[in-house]
Amino acid sequence: MAIQAWESKAEKARERLARSVPKKWLLEKSELPSPTRLNVMGVPEESGRLTPEEIQITNSDASGLVKRMSTGEWTAEQVTIAYLKRATIGHQLLNMATEFMMEDALSQARALDDYYRQHKKVIGPLHGVPISTKEHVSHKGRPVHASYVALVENIAPDDAHLVRLLKACGAVFHLRTNEPQTMMTGDTENNLSGRTKNGNNLRLANGGSSGGEGASISFKCAAIGFGTDIGGSIRFPAAFNGCYGFRPTACRVPYGGVFLPGEGQESIRCVIGPLTRSIDDVDLVMSSVLEQRPWEKELSLVPLPWKAVKKSSDITVGVMWNDGIVNPQPPMQRALKTTVEKLIAAGVKVVDFEPYKTAEAMEIILTLFFPDGAKTQWDLLNASGEPVNEQSQRMLGIAREISVAENWAYNARRDALRDEFHDLMAQRGVDVILTAPYPGAAPLVGTVDYGAYTMLWNMLDMPALVMPVGLSVDPAIDQKNASYQPISEHDKVQFDKYNAEDTVGAPICVQVVGKHFQDEETIAAARIIEDALARSTKSAVL
Amino acid sequence: MAIQAWESKAEKARERLARSVPKKWLLEKSELPSPTRLNVMGVPEESGRLTPEEIQITNSDASGLVKRMSTGEWTAEQVTIAYLKRATIGHQLLNMATEFMMEDALSQARALDDYYRQHKKVIGPLHGVPISTKEHVSHKGRPVHASYVALVENIAPDDAHLVRLLKACGAVFHLRTNEPQTMMTGDTENNLSGRTKNGNNLRLANGGSSGGEGASISFKCAAIGFGTDIGGSIRFPAAFNGCYGFRPTACRVPYGGVFLPGEGQESIRCVIGPLTRSIDDVDLVMSSVLEQRPWEKELSLVPLPWKAVKKSSDITVGVMWNDGIVNPQPPMQRALKTTVEKLIAAGVKVVDFEPYKTAEAMEIILTLFFPDGAKTQWDLLNASGEPVNEQSQRMLGIAREISVAENWAYNARRDALRDEFHDLMAQRGVDVILTAPYPGAAPLVGTVDYGAYTMLWNMLDMPALVMPVGLSVDPAIDQKNASYQPISEHDKVQFDKYNAEDTVGAPICVQVVGKHFQDEETIAAARIIEDALARSTKSAVL
Repeated sequence: MAIQAWESKAEKARERLARSVPKKWLLEKSELPSPTRLNVMGVPEESGRLTPEEIQITNSDASGLVKRMSTGEWTAEQVTIAYLKRATIGHQLLNMATEFMMEDALSQARALDDYYRQHKKVIGPLHGVPISTKEHVSHKGRPVHASYVALVENIAPDDAHLVRLLKACGAVFHLRTNEPQTMMTGDTENNLSGRTKNGNNLRLANGGSSGGEGASISFKCAAIGFGTDIGGSIRFPAAFNGCYGFRPTACRVPYGGVFLPGEGQESIRCVIGPLTRSIDDVDLVMSSVLEQRPWEKELSLVPLPWKAVKKSSDITVGVMWNDGIVNPQPPMQRALKTTVEKLIAAGVKVVDFEPYKTAEAMEIILTLFFPDGAKTQWDLLNASGEPVNEQSQRMLGIAREISVAENWAYNARRDALRDEFHDLMAQRGVDVILTAPYPGAAPLVGTVDYGAYTMLWNMLDMPALVMPVGLSVDPAIDQKNASYQPISEHDKVQFDKYNAEDTVGAPICVQVVGKHFQDEETIAAARIIEDALARSTKSAVL
Repeated sequence: MAIQAWESKAEKARERLARSVPKKWLLEKSELPSPTRLNVMGVPEESGRLTPEEIQITNSDASGLVKRMSTGEWTAEQVTIAYLKRATIGHQLLNMATEFMMEDALSQARALDDYYRQHKKVIGPLHGVPISTKEHVSHKGRPVHASYVALVENIAPDDAHLVRLLKACGAVFHLRTNEPQTMMTGDTENNLSGRTKNGNNLRLANGGSSGGEGASISFKCAAIGFGTDIGGSIRFPAAFNGCYGFRPTACRVPYGGVFLPGEGQESIRCVIGPLTRSIDDVDLVMSSVLEQRPWEKELSLVPLPWKAVKKSSDITVGVMWNDGIVNPQPPMQRALKTTVEKLIAAGVKVVDFEPYKTAEAMEIILTLFFPDGAKTQWDLLNASGEPVNEQSQRMLGIAREISVAENWAYNARRDALRDEFHDLMAQRGVDVILTAPYPGAAPLVGTVDYGAYTMLWNMLDMPALVMPVGLSVDPAIDQKNASYQPISEHDKVQFDKYNAEDTVGAPICVQVVGKHFQDEETIAAARIIEDALARSTKSAVL
């Protein structure tokens, strides 16, 4: 069989990736984990390839790294090498990279070390912090293809605005990561570099579309990652991998230079946001970016600095136990219940929050994803002739072309629903909503098929943080109740496919959702929740 | 000839208006000015119908009114009656009302007076301030038709969000005002209540689409007016009538309940903003509204309070002498030159500001006005069969239906131009731009046909204040230079039709434009300009 044109194009991307991988740090075949081993998260530590200090470095969050670098205890080069080493192993096991940028990263790091030696201080609040970015975030002079084979040779004319700002405060960019075909699906597989895996359990979905970032941050290949989110694409991977993933309110974080075909679509804005290993790091990176007043360069942003919000337990948390369509599965119910119990024990006011018009919100957002009938995506897929995978087919299959006037009507319904939902929160006296990010923890590969728990907040343009609660799926306690009566067709599908044994060991995350533009208050509330979880763990026998 | 269906519908609107006019305050036929008199602005004073105190009241701006009411010198009822009396004469001469709301206004005013007697203080920062609103701003239970005959019986379910907020700080609503057919033209004439006139010179255009507001504020029928602006609709009437008209950055002032067919069109947002008789009143009304945190109810707004900005003469004013397509006519050139001279005399830094891509901006905004091919407008016009006037025909004639994807591409070009323009301002070190609002002062009725000087700032979403400079057209000094060589076809059209004698006595206004979201800084800069104008007038022989 002859090699098709699309395959040789795709091969170029694979070759570029292969060339960029730091060979010297790859595990030997003999060092690789057994093919039957499901959880590979411990491999870097076990491998002996990282020094104890490198393990310590990669276990540190960005805030901790900067602290140690500001005292001179660690150098930026040392930190960068530690993360590069771990990322090499991470990629070998999870296939999460699209490109390593080792030389650039090392030269950035050495320049930072020079600066530090000369000035006896760090260059900025992210001095020496290794950051990974989803592939479609532009890096000057490097290809940026959004996973389309047809665009493999498209070169970014400049760094993305956000990358420039992060560099200005000292961040080091060493790694670019994988994303799915069309960028519009909840798991990560494409014709260029294949599928990204979930290190907690290789049988499980890793999430998408910022799947490479979910793997990068949970496997500690970078201290902070940046993904994008139009329907949950930061939060699926965070939830499935067990790290923090923050979808900010739209028009706060610089988006210029994120390469996403369909530019100018504003009805549901795609946003860029961080994946981290601590809440501190969300605050750190958001304030580092916004103190640079990016709205003066990118006019679609609103001029709102990242304000300091004191965490206060004088908040009311509304628990949305379900979305009105699908009930969470046993592990997720357990996580929500545990969180609520601990919040109550910590003296935080918690009330039930009835879901509101989820189905209408879904109709609106799903229509507004593809008002051009997905012509944008189909044209690019057809341009190379690359095969269209099942999840892309399913997602693009919902597309329906509408006119500009119909689009307006949907915009108006969207705005009305945003207003209504916030009125409801005010009436109910609820400051933040606690809910699931997905019906369950990570499902089996190829079975990510329900997005309302994340999309709802894109439709409403509310800031949403996915955060781990320190629990994972345990078949001994997370069995389903065979007599359960599903509340909808969707619910039946999710219930039928749930099997505790399948998802054993998957980390469980919850989602904290705040009011529109109250990003800082949302993060402050997440701290209260995290404090409550930590305090009860220490004080109570559970 | 039989009366057509549309005519009997339109007649209903006229009857409602006629019923609402306070008959007792109408001038007798014998009191009306001579039909050959062009400037009728002095009629209220001359008529003897207003007491000296009522003249004083109607000469006061809103800030002054509130001051006098807060000491108890004037009552809200007295103020309301004074403005109603003047508005009755104003309407009689200029045909600017669509509805008087005398009884509601008087009962609001009496309630305010009761409050004042009981609490010995004003109820809020707009206590007793009579405000007029353009017809398509909703008042609960009253028709709202946006000048379409087909919608004459459309009843507003609620007050507009802005009206609710203004009422909450004490404003009194006594008057609703005229607007043109389709709302998309620069002068005010429709099939419901006809044409609104310019009291400075009845042969001149009054401007549009907030033409009723231009007449209301300049004739002192209200202390503050609210109009809307998608391409200049606040600023044309302000410029032609000689008052202040402020187009804020989009998404700052509550827009909910402004009834404009085509809801959900977001590419070029229509905004609502004030027309006033002083800069103080712009600050007063903006802060009164925004201190109520309207963004918590109307989620499309950005959460930016109206911040106090100290005026500082340490600014750089860029003078955009022309838009690159049409040169201002002699009176406007004189106004700009005079302003610049006085700014320089006052020690303010002034630099020339070359126009930038005006033609491209016009292509973008004119396309984005009607991406549905103006089907929205045509459907409503056709629904009643009302005749379509010449200016509507001309404006709708430019409409071109585009697809959603084409709309996206225009959005992207719009955003790129916004970014470029602000980069340019930063490079040139310019804080605000001083320019014309129109090639000349008010042109003859039926000849408003050039919008780039206002539309440019809608396209760029920059705050823009039109303000009088204390000059008016004087044929003795504003003659055109017959040897002038037009710089474009558009320029030739404007040059050929200019005739100083036609526009004698027309007030001349300039436009002050600030950076996106720097609404407060724009108003502060306008104060510097006004101070300079006032100071030089006092100190120099001109």
